[in-house]
Amino acid sequence: MISVIILGAGNIGTHLYKAFKKAENIKVNQWYNRSIKNINKYKNEVDVTDDISQLKDADVYILAVSDEAVAPISKALHFENKLVVHTAGSVNIHDLDKKHRRGVFYPVQSFTKTANLDFSDIPICIETLDKKDYNLLKSVALELGGPVKKVNSDQRKVLHLAAVFVNNFSNQMYRIAHEIVESEAAEFDLLKPLIMETARKIQDMSPYMAQTGPAKRNNLKTIKKHLTLLENDQHKEIYKLMTQSIQETHGR
Amino acid sequence: MISVIILGAGNIGTHLYKAFKKAENIKVNQWYNRSIKNINKYKNEVDVTDDISQLKDADVYILAVSDEAVAPISKALHFENKLVVHTAGSVNIHDLDKKHRRGVFYPVQSFTKTANLDFSDIPICIETLDKKDYNLLKSVALELGGPVKKVNSDQRKVLHLAAVFVNNFSNQMYRIAHEIVESEAAEFDLLKPLIMETARKIQDMSPYMAQTGPAKRNNLKTIKKHLTLLENDQHKEIYKLMTQSIQETHGR
Repeated sequence: MISVIILGAGNIGTHLYKAFKKAENIKVNQWYNRSIKNINKYKNEVDVTDDISQLKDADVYILAVSDEAVAPISKALHFENKLVVHTAGSVNIHDLDKKHRRGVFYPVQSFTKTANLDFSDIPICIETLDKKDYNLLKSVALELGGPVKKVNSDQRKVLHLAAVFVNNFSNQMYRIAHEIVESEAAEFDLLKPLIMETARKIQDMSPYMAQTGPAKRNNLKTIKKHLTLLENDQHKEIYKLMTQSIQETHGR
Repeated sequence: MISVIILGAGNIGTHLYKAFKKAENIKVNQWYNRSIKNINKYKNEVDVTDDISQLKDADVYILAVSDEAVAPISKALHFENKLVVHTAGSVNIHDLDKKHRRGVFYPVQSFTKTANLDFSDIPICIETLDKKDYNLLKSVALELGGPVKKVNSDQRKVLHLAAVFVNNFSNQMYRIAHEIVESEAAEFDLLKPLIMETARKIQDMSPYMAQTGPAKRNNLKTIKKHLTLLENDQHKEIYKLMTQSIQETHGR
């Protein structure tokens, strides 16, 4: 049995807590949050606290806090030489206070508090400064049931950046599409199967191979029609820039 | 039983042929393609031809041809007063020769020849000039098992445009992410669950509600880190423009 303490009750902290509660070989010794309000409802199933000086002993301390809070909270911990990891994609492992054995436990997923998430489908990227800690952290990650991958800081940084493209920017494409179809009272729902299929297709085909459409075919007539249809100048800019990008990828 | 003749053996034509072959109340009377090579292997199950003057009688003629070919092929048909429909998102219904009863049969999906597609999940947008033809075309569409929607020309045009955003442009985001992670020898596979989840989330949540990330949170430190990491100038431009777009959507 590996004991962990979770610090933070935001989206990641809450999802991690729920997943660890269900894991066979993990015991959540304690859950810390600076505001007790958010975690008080769990007090019958786990020790909750808002007093960082009262943290118990555990094998791993997981800082599921905002990027900016990683350094100060790791410093505020009153013990040393314990395995302390953060969960942030773009924060350096050395931002953790050096009195700790340090690591990173980065789930490649976008967390929304309300949406249910199955961790068995979420890759966990781990990194430790000390080799011995790697196996301990790996055991924790494996308990969640998904793929576990050793990823260094540079790789984690580009994964986090790439995640913004596939998640935030794709989602903004959905949002723009929503605005466009609503301008003619057409239904966004009609696009949902296409959105699923676009994501599904690259599960076993490269995005390069999966590309279709007027930009790839260099169908200038359709591109011109589309630019005329677009009323929002920013949407026009996005259309032009993405069309250029596709054309460069496909050698136009 | 409704009889149809398919013209064209590109992606849409081929997928439609296979789907109609399985449909209970549709008989594919003939399949035309300007090059017989592409359809010759089906000659034991359907009448194939490359001679447009030899088209048989049918209730509906479906032109699954390129945008530019819709007008000339509809003109080249030697009969008149038959229901002739095209499948193109951005082609006007009036581009069909006026000697025909005219319609549009537009599946909102991106077709790749190799990928298998289940039509029961593909919305078919239909439009006819004559009210009586609407019911006939609807019956054909319903045989494919998916949702069927009456959509006028203006709505179809914006759907086709919006489809480019959700399909081609999102796919290009995947492609850029692929390039970014490969620059550090990280695995694109680690992003695949996130890509699926991003598409899945908006099936029952608006893209507006589903948005997360540094642009929405106005996390300038992370945005700056990301722009520094990006080496490709075009990727930088896309990052900036999409970040602006998200910030405007979310009122920054």
